[in-house]
Amino acid sequence: MNDFDYMKLALELAENTRGQTSPNPMVGSVVVKDGAIVGVGAHLKAGEGHAEVQALKMAGDKAEGGTIYVTLEPCSHYGKTPPCADLIIEKKLKRVVVATTDPNPEVAGRGIEKLKNAGIEVIVGIQKQQADELNQVFFHYIQTKKPYVTLKSATTLDGKTATVAGKSKWITGPLAREDVHRLRHIHDAILVGVGTVLADNPSLTTRLPNGGKNPIRVVLDRKLRTPIDCKLIQDQEAPTWIMASAEASQERRVELEQHNVEVILLPDDEIETMLHILGAKGVTSLFVEGGAEVNGSFLKARAVNQVITYFAPKLFGGKTAPTAIGGDGFSEVDEAIELEIKEVTTIGNDIKVVSIVKGSE
Amino acid sequence: MNDFDYMKLALELAENTRGQTSPNPMVGSVVVKDGAIVGVGAHLKAGEGHAEVQALKMAGDKAEGGTIYVTLEPCSHYGKTPPCADLIIEKKLKRVVVATTDPNPEVAGRGIEKLKNAGIEVIVGIQKQQADELNQVFFHYIQTKKPYVTLKSATTLDGKTATVAGKSKWITGPLAREDVHRLRHIHDAILVGVGTVLADNPSLTTRLPNGGKNPIRVVLDRKLRTPIDCKLIQDQEAPTWIMASAEASQERRVELEQHNVEVILLPDDEIETMLHILGAKGVTSLFVEGGAEVNGSFLKARAVNQVITYFAPKLFGGKTAPTAIGGDGFSEVDEAIELEIKEVTTIGNDIKVVSIVKGSE
Repeated sequence: MNDFDYMKLALELAENTRGQTSPNPMVGSVVVKDGAIVGVGAHLKAGEGHAEVQALKMAGDKAEGGTIYVTLEPCSHYGKTPPCADLIIEKKLKRVVVATTDPNPEVAGRGIEKLKNAGIEVIVGIQKQQADELNQVFFHYIQTKKPYVTLKSATTLDGKTATVAGKSKWITGPLAREDVHRLRHIHDAILVGVGTVLADNPSLTTRLPNGGKNPIRVVLDRKLRTPIDCKLIQDQEAPTWIMASAEASQERRVELEQHNVEVILLPDDEIETMLHILGAKGVTSLFVEGGAEVNGSFLKARAVNQVITYFAPKLFGGKTAPTAIGGDGFSEVDEAIELEIKEVTTIGNDIKVVSIVKGSE
Repeated sequence: MNDFDYMKLALELAENTRGQTSPNPMVGSVVVKDGAIVGVGAHLKAGEGHAEVQALKMAGDKAEGGTIYVTLEPCSHYGKTPPCADLIIEKKLKRVVVATTDPNPEVAGRGIEKLKNAGIEVIVGIQKQQADELNQVFFHYIQTKKPYVTLKSATTLDGKTATVAGKSKWITGPLAREDVHRLRHIHDAILVGVGTVLADNPSLTTRLPNGGKNPIRVVLDRKLRTPIDCKLIQDQEAPTWIMASAEASQERRVELEQHNVEVILLPDDEIETMLHILGAKGVTSLFVEGGAEVNGSFLKARAVNQVITYFAPKLFGGKTAPTAIGGDGFSEVDEAIELEIKEVTTIGNDIKVVSIVKGSE
């Protein structure tokens, strides 16, 4: 095994914590001495030990003179835990291999600098692309202070989300629907418009065979029309936030707050502003599940980073049947949101397409 | 090499004639003697020799005592050429391996029977599925007397065929557009609605780097609104047929016919009736390129056999942006056309999905 192999293992350790580390990044680490792995670790949860700490703890005295592989630059500052760079120096590692540097431009390189100053050999950039993709969401959040936005849609192969009569149960199959629950699990928050609440009364919780983490449920509801008896308010399964206009009824607001709902007043109509507010509240990733009007607003605001589309092998037809992204849309072809397709797979009988919005990180 | 390998070669010979044998099926043949290939052949064009005749001609005297592989049951009747079964008997083959039987139930098995009666060993069913799929179009035509209908659409990933302002140039990339020309090449006829003629003035010809066969151009134009100065009438690149209502203006009809257009009067509004008329005129395969209303009519009539969908990595958004299949559509989810996805590929930056309508052969 060489540097690439050990880093690949470190990346796999990190990848397996997806959904449980927010607002921290996923990080994995491997300690190697005389060609044998003597420690492995991953950052499991915010507030708990960093990956390097875990791996060095397992290695114990064997770490001395060895090499530590870590998917993200070791920290150099005191946060909830002491700096990992200091621990590596203290444990007398001989060599440190880092996949990618800290995404925060203000501290990037400081951990590496500290290690080099202590006479440790440092290699940077092994499996960098994989490491950057692994923490795409975290890096985006650190750099923009806004959540990484994923827009999801599920349509027939002719692009319809319902029949002309509004029927939509079900379009995709059980495996695709379960996949959506996995996406809920790995997102900090999920957003729908009040139209979806009124039409479908969804719970927006994560329902997976082995459980899962519920995202914060965010309803874009400028006029506070969310009914008190809806599942989002009644089930108490996860926090529910309502994003409302500052002009919304004060009385409604008090009533909603009495039911444990957090009402957040928006100073303007911009999706951008809402994302900054959610970012300031610690939401690093936002899963937008429509409906068409809300999706259209996110599209028009160019506020989408990733698009996940499920296509069911069905045709509804119909000029007036609804589509996934409504609103005003773009008039010119060259105004359209351009995507880079990352993944096309079949899931059950359905097709899943993952794409990244070009020009968004 | 064994029976499967030789049949695979025969299937490949046949597959390479796609687009040039209509209204006949694609057929390939291989003659083997003492473990060596002594003849290969394919049916190249209607009116020319059958695959067996070509392969036996190449084999000459070496055919005696050998095995002939043929992808479709040898014919037993006198058509434009004498029966292949007779030739095989005359050339004293010892063994005949057939992939699949004649699709015409009235004559299926007769060729095989004739060979067996002559004391020749006959094996049937080697690579049957591949042979059936190869001639799906021909088999459908023989059994239903209607063309095999392929509906093509090209949309953004959010299902739009144009922006809210009607702009659509271009949605898919050059490789996907070239692929559409390959599909035109292999179809007997292409169909659009008069709306598409009026809006886009298309030529509907096959434009491939190395040429290609133009399909017959069929316009569904009940009221004979096709303008005389449109490309379909002016360019004389391929026959143009207009399917009109019996009530359409006799004067317009005469005028169109004077411009070399064949006007075909439809006794009713059923897509089914039109398909029977096209079938009776020898059209075995029909490529439907829309627009939305025509596609919607074919969908509602359940007259589609295959669906080919191109998705461009773009999002237009817009509640009023047009989609590929319009018309009335289906009201209930369980009325929807159900598809079986056969192929999902990327072509340039676009995604191509080939699906077969379930329950249609």
